[in-house]
Amino acid sequence: MPRAALDLAPGVRPRVVVVGSGHGGLECVLALESAAVDVLLVDQNNFHTFQPLLYQVATAGLDVNDITQPIRHIVRSQANTEVRMGTVVGADFEARTLALADGGTIPYDVLVLAPGAATAYFGVEGAEEHGFPLKSVGDAVALRSHVLRQFEAVASDPSLLDTGALTTVVVGGGPTGVEMSGALRELFGVLSKDFPAVEVDRAHVVLVDGDRLPLSGYDPSLREYARETLVGKGAEVRLGVNVATVDADGVTLADGQRIAAKTVVWAAGIRAHPLADALGLEQTRGARLVVDETLRPPGHDRVFVVGDAAGATDAEGALYPQVAQVAIQQGKHAAKLIEAMDSGDLAAIDEPFVYDDLGQMATIGRNAAILQLPSGFTLTGFLAWVGWLLVHLVSLVGFRNRAAVFGNWFYNYLTYDRGPRLILGAPRRPARVASPAAPDA
Amino acid sequence: MPRAALDLAPGVRPRVVVVGSGHGGLECVLALESAAVDVLLVDQNNFHTFQPLLYQVATAGLDVNDITQPIRHIVRSQANTEVRMGTVVGADFEARTLALADGGTIPYDVLVLAPGAATAYFGVEGAEEHGFPLKSVGDAVALRSHVLRQFEAVASDPSLLDTGALTTVVVGGGPTGVEMSGALRELFGVLSKDFPAVEVDRAHVVLVDGDRLPLSGYDPSLREYARETLVGKGAEVRLGVNVATVDADGVTLADGQRIAAKTVVWAAGIRAHPLADALGLEQTRGARLVVDETLRPPGHDRVFVVGDAAGATDAEGALYPQVAQVAIQQGKHAAKLIEAMDSGDLAAIDEPFVYDDLGQMATIGRNAAILQLPSGFTLTGFLAWVGWLLVHLVSLVGFRNRAAVFGNWFYNYLTYDRGPRLILGAPRRPARVASPAAPDA
Repeated sequence: MPRAALDLAPGVRPRVVVVGSGHGGLECVLALESAAVDVLLVDQNNFHTFQPLLYQVATAGLDVNDITQPIRHIVRSQANTEVRMGTVVGADFEARTLALADGGTIPYDVLVLAPGAATAYFGVEGAEEHGFPLKSVGDAVALRSHVLRQFEAVASDPSLLDTGALTTVVVGGGPTGVEMSGALRELFGVLSKDFPAVEVDRAHVVLVDGDRLPLSGYDPSLREYARETLVGKGAEVRLGVNVATVDADGVTLADGQRIAAKTVVWAAGIRAHPLADALGLEQTRGARLVVDETLRPPGHDRVFVVGDAAGATDAEGALYPQVAQVAIQQGKHAAKLIEAMDSGDLAAIDEPFVYDDLGQMATIGRNAAILQLPSGFTLTGFLAWVGWLLVHLVSLVGFRNRAAVFGNWFYNYLTYDRGPRLILGAPRRPARVASPAAPDA
Repeated sequence: MPRAALDLAPGVRPRVVVVGSGHGGLECVLALESAAVDVLLVDQNNFHTFQPLLYQVATAGLDVNDITQPIRHIVRSQANTEVRMGTVVGADFEARTLALADGGTIPYDVLVLAPGAATAYFGVEGAEEHGFPLKSVGDAVALRSHVLRQFEAVASDPSLLDTGALTTVVVGGGPTGVEMSGALRELFGVLSKDFPAVEVDRAHVVLVDGDRLPLSGYDPSLREYARETLVGKGAEVRLGVNVATVDADGVTLADGQRIAAKTVVWAAGIRAHPLADALGLEQTRGARLVVDETLRPPGHDRVFVVGDAAGATDAEGALYPQVAQVAIQQGKHAAKLIEAMDSGDLAAIDEPFVYDDLGQMATIGRNAAILQLPSGFTLTGFLAWVGWLLVHLVSLVGFRNRAAVFGNWFYNYLTYDRGPRLILGAPRRPARVASPAAPDA
């Protein structure tokens, strides 16, 4: 079947359904603005979340509203696009319909799957039950509230300090783990003023990673800089050892060491969103959906997968990293092929996706970040940190969010203060792994 | 017993425990800054809520963080003050201890009770189960999410419009009811752009009040202005009739009329916080605690009650209105008498509380508010609205909140937009009446 043949009567606009309003899904929708198609964007939430800054919500630097944007607001001026809040739980590729958790169905002519990722626990005992994930605004507020509750508890009963009430173990030395560790140490500085009666110098952050250095994928000199910076901020960095088990009182490492800690941040890894398991499609490492070089699952000409759930590989056969830039570029690529399909541009409908690596950056905290370009150029320190700030400000969707985040960062930087350190919601153990049926915020 | 005799050894500083960090409790604590006492402020939340602006959180004009402030931050520079997060469930006035929900106790030499108010349902069938109260940030976010969910539901299934999915009944024509009604109408204007496929002109707000006009306590001309302004904004105002029952599908009025409505905002009244019921003290109308003219419960020389839970009366024997200004002035008055008790200033320890009425104001929406001074001076329209904005901006605790609220109001005014229209949390029926044991946010 020529892919351009969408079986549509002349003049009928194909219905493109995009599942997920993360970076990949949203970019795809926006790139279809002037295409002769009708777009429906489906998401379980009514807002887009700027995930790279979730750790700042968890550490009271920003609030939920700063890093989220109502989807309907984003696509408000896009005449060919509608939005539906709903939880997709399956698909019938023969009938070309999606199944929703509420029993409804959504027909499509072309489907773009961008469900994103969920936290991966790798079968580590107790990790899911006792670890705090950081994949949604709900996760971030729960973690922030939990950490602040520990300080309140110690203020009432200082003996709790001996049980690790103020110790946080961060599992996983990727960008999230490093950023959380640095930001927690800076938050403790603020809390030392809030809690004069608490020995905040006994509040610990222990970053645990199985590798020899944090931030795998970066140049060794940058990884060493990150380690040194974290240590300089007062974090403990335990490398070359994995976490064996997690329980309510702390973690046990693979070498038998025990760390008493009432807070365990689980930043050890992600897997494709559980929707990927429910489609009957082939999966690869991390439960990602196997796709060809055009981002289509083999045998499914009208389906694209983009972002963290896509198992696309580069020319060497390596899976692309699960980062925002890949999702964004894949979303745009799917939109381009959809336009080609619709217009019958046979030369373009099978154009392979090629990732344009713009480099990567991570921040460790105030005045400290790392930046690495594909050319091999690297940068650390204040300039890299300013670069990180600018890139993230510009990437935020919406003027209001940019203004709010800029204002908060400026205030935090000048005052060494943190704003939204509110304890919200009932005390709770962390949520189960996100399931397609459960709203996650 | 001379009240100045606090039974303390020379040089021992009396321990003043203040329960509640609302306007009354907080002002009392701040007024004790330079007193020779040790202050402990106890609250079930770790933040102060600026309740007069809760309705703007419920209607997506402001976010939670804009109208709250961590208590520890507020009293950070006050050397004689400590904070404890805990839920007070009772008191032993003989032993001079407070009982906490977690089983702990707190001793006091002088006690200031400022627990505030809870929603009163007056035994109206279904009101507590199906009505949304508006007394906490948790209430406000739940109400906002519920209203937005109704719009999402109608976007998926327009037939729901016929069942009142987009109709909100606001029960009670006091300031909260009037402000909610006006703000909801303005929110609908924003949502009509978010939901182009929804017939938003069929979204209704019906304000119901048993009186002949809304805003009892104001000059009749202002009340008529409020009614006309609400009608001009597209709200329906049903006066002279009470709500008989509330159910999942709407309300039935006392005259038998039926209003189909999937959202019922219960702004019909408040009563003293349930802690007032648990103290074994005499109560008066609205469950408020009976106090003498010095704000002490009869026979309890070391106890003060301030704010919405206090049953203080004016020279004519009328209970003071349950508004922020009364609470603020009562909190300051209690602090003054406590200083007198501590210093042995016998002339001052029984000074009666006299309310200095600064006037009252309420807003109906954009460019529309009413203002009434004790002199009889009244003002409506744009100037009253600007006055309302300024008074509320200045009353907010903390530079950061003032900047955020000012920025948001400025943005909303210029753009006719609303920011934080996020649906958070699982769909839920409204919470039960706040109990002392349940955190309310």
